Amino acid sequence: MMKRIYNFNAGPAMLPLEVLQEVQSELLDLQGSGMSILEMSHRAPIYEKINAEAEADIKELLGLGDDYCVLFMGGGASLQFSMVPMNFLGAGQTAAYAVTSNFSDKAVKEAEKVGKVVIPFSSKAEKYDRVPQPGEIRLPENCAYLHITANNTIEGTEYSVYPETGAVPLIADMSSDILSKPIPAEKFSLIYAGVQKNIGPAGAVAVIARKKFIEGRSKALHSMLNYETHLDNGSLYNTPPAFAVYIVGKVAKWLKAQGGLVMMEQRNAAKAKIVYDVIDMYPDFFRGFAKTGSRSLMNVTFGLPTEALEKRFAVEAEELGMGGLKGHRSVGGLRASIYNAMPLAGCEKLAEFMEAFYKIHK
Amino acid sequence: MMKRIYNFNAGPAMLPLEVLQEVQSELLDLQGSGMSILEMSHRAPIYEKINAEAEADIKELLGLGDDYCVLFMGGGASLQFSMVPMNFLGAGQTAAYAVTSNFSDKAVKEAEKVGKVVIPFSSKAEKYDRVPQPGEIRLPENCAYLHITANNTIEGTEYSVYPETGAVPLIADMSSDILSKPIPAEKFSLIYAGVQKNIGPAGAVAVIARKKFIEGRSKALHSMLNYETHLDNGSLYNTPPAFAVYIVGKVAKWLKAQGGLVMMEQRNAAKAKIVYDVIDMYPDFFRGFAKTGSRSLMNVTFGLPTEALEKRFAVEAEELGMGGLKGHRSVGGLRASIYNAMPLAGCEKLAEFMEAFYKIHK
Repeated sequence: MMKRIYNFNAGPAMLPLEVLQEVQSELLDLQGSGMSILEMSHRAPIYEKINAEAEADIKELLGLGDDYCVLFMGGGASLQFSMVPMNFLGAGQTAAYAVTSNFSDKAVKEAEKVGKVVIPFSSKAEKYDRVPQPGEIRLPENCAYLHITANNTIEGTEYSVYPETGAVPLIADMSSDILSKPIPAEKFSLIYAGVQKNIGPAGAVAVIARKKFIEGRSKALHSMLNYETHLDNGSLYNTPPAFAVYIVGKVAKWLKAQGGLVMMEQRNAAKAKIVYDVIDMYPDFFRGFAKTGSRSLMNVTFGLPTEALEKRFAVEAEELGMGGLKGHRSVGGLRASIYNAMPLAGCEKLAEFMEAFYKIHK
Repeated sequence: MMKRIYNFNAGPAMLPLEVLQEVQSELLDLQGSGMSILEMSHRAPIYEKINAEAEADIKELLGLGDDYCVLFMGGGASLQFSMVPMNFLGAGQTAAYAVTSNFSDKAVKEAEKVGKVVIPFSSKAEKYDRVPQPGEIRLPENCAYLHITANNTIEGTEYSVYPETGAVPLIADMSSDILSKPIPAEKFSLIYAGVQKNIGPAGAVAVIARKKFIEGRSKALHSMLNYETHLDNGSLYNTPPAFAVYIVGKVAKWLKAQGGLVMMEQRNAAKAKIVYDVIDMYPDFFRGFAKTGSRSLMNVTFGLPTEALEKRFAVEAEELGMGGLKGHRSVGGLRASIYNAMPLAGCEKLAEFMEAFYKIHK
């Protein structure tokens, strides 16, 4: 018998059941082609349409026009940590990185292999408990770009307002909150996101960028590491991670059917509130990690009075059909990742369990 | 109703039906976990086991021991064109590339961005109709490695004997014949293969390498582009293309169940012979592209007397349930890709159709 749990994993993470069922039903024969999406040439008209529609639907969700592109590639967000400075950090320039997580820190380390980096904001000393507030970031002279980590999966923090950078390009890693809420997308020159948290399975990264920002890259760049190669070939320079793109396309259509990003934000905010409310009601027991103004709608992080209790909490939750609540190995504690596909009922069930657990162990 | 064709696509390509059916049956709930493989953390014990077994099974099929590793990463073989020279072409060294296809040529172009390259063999002037024969390659002084393209998908040529390189590391792109036959795997310092032809769907590359060859890479390399990062982390440095690895693992088990690579070679040779025999019987009509000693067991390429006939052949074959027979856009003609998963019956059906088509149009 099929079993389905509430999956609070941080990524890869829960996907909409409707999407999975559709994938399952057409897995042996896609659209009467007599083959699986897993067996289909990326030059086949069916796949070209999947690729084009995924791009168009993401742009529609974000309200972007023809001056933007959506590219799909492999290698994950971690490869983007290198591609961004390789492509955009020129000699004599300085790249600015707001460091709000160990992932921002990893991005810095790769950028330093390319050129000069400054860090105008870091919450490392406070274990990354917050993101910068408006006006807090001062950019250096001759700044190539400002790089931010929009949502910090491990720590559970998220920007609600993005930094103003004027003429300096703004680049964001949105791996863990992509398409979870409306954003002023045109403020960004480039957004990248590993798709495996909010919009797909592991194996692809979506790059959403202003075309003009990408055009004119150096010919000395390696082909696969040059954004312009992917732009010029509509994500089909080499064999793309086709199955992941196919699922991202289905998720984008699912998001549109749910009412788009305005509706998703309402739903995501309501979901997060249910969990944060319990934390705020019993703050001596549930120790919220993120500073209040930096709380993430995607990852709710908290500790309990003892490690033994945290372990017990995760085990008992699992027995009740709620998986993946253990915090990241680097910070410990507990974490509920409640991306787009997590239903409200999952958050309600978690909140009820938190209350019951509190009453027994307070 | 489900329709399944004989899929002669060059890649992504046919997968064993049993594997697809297994994937389909467990797509919503993997091993009672209550979640799909598409939703599962790459740190979960179930996935760690999938990853470890895929590595072990591939090593077992190739007869390799603990001194070799199998790594899975994203970016496709095209990214390997860059990673190989970045990792192994040192200052003052020369890399040798045997150029037997436009893919070898692409590999050369990326290597030239890193350092000095020589081409001890090229069949470019003959449109890549053959691979080098034993003794035909002379390596340069201070040679970092020799890079070969083991099977040339577009042209339909394949090495049956690999070059002797003595102490010089031998590196091969085996994207289109990986695990299709027994090979002297220990001759190779590193083999890479996009998995989407013989052993999986698009989205992952398998790197099979001698551990000692990978150890000791420069710290200046970008983390994701450094083979040692992936070795040190057992392919789990960042979120891997998990679904592709999961299918590769199933295909590896399927290959073992078929009797391993000795059996696969017998079967693949028998399949190819059926098609080549028709070509050889009517050589004025079916114009085999590859020189006889270089013929591929994986991709059978041929032309017909006119382009109009070639087009008609592909269309009529499609109507009979044989898809993907059009040659690559760069060379035209026809191509039957008959990887591991193509059953003998598919080649028989194709050969019958070739005979019938000949009799009508000769």
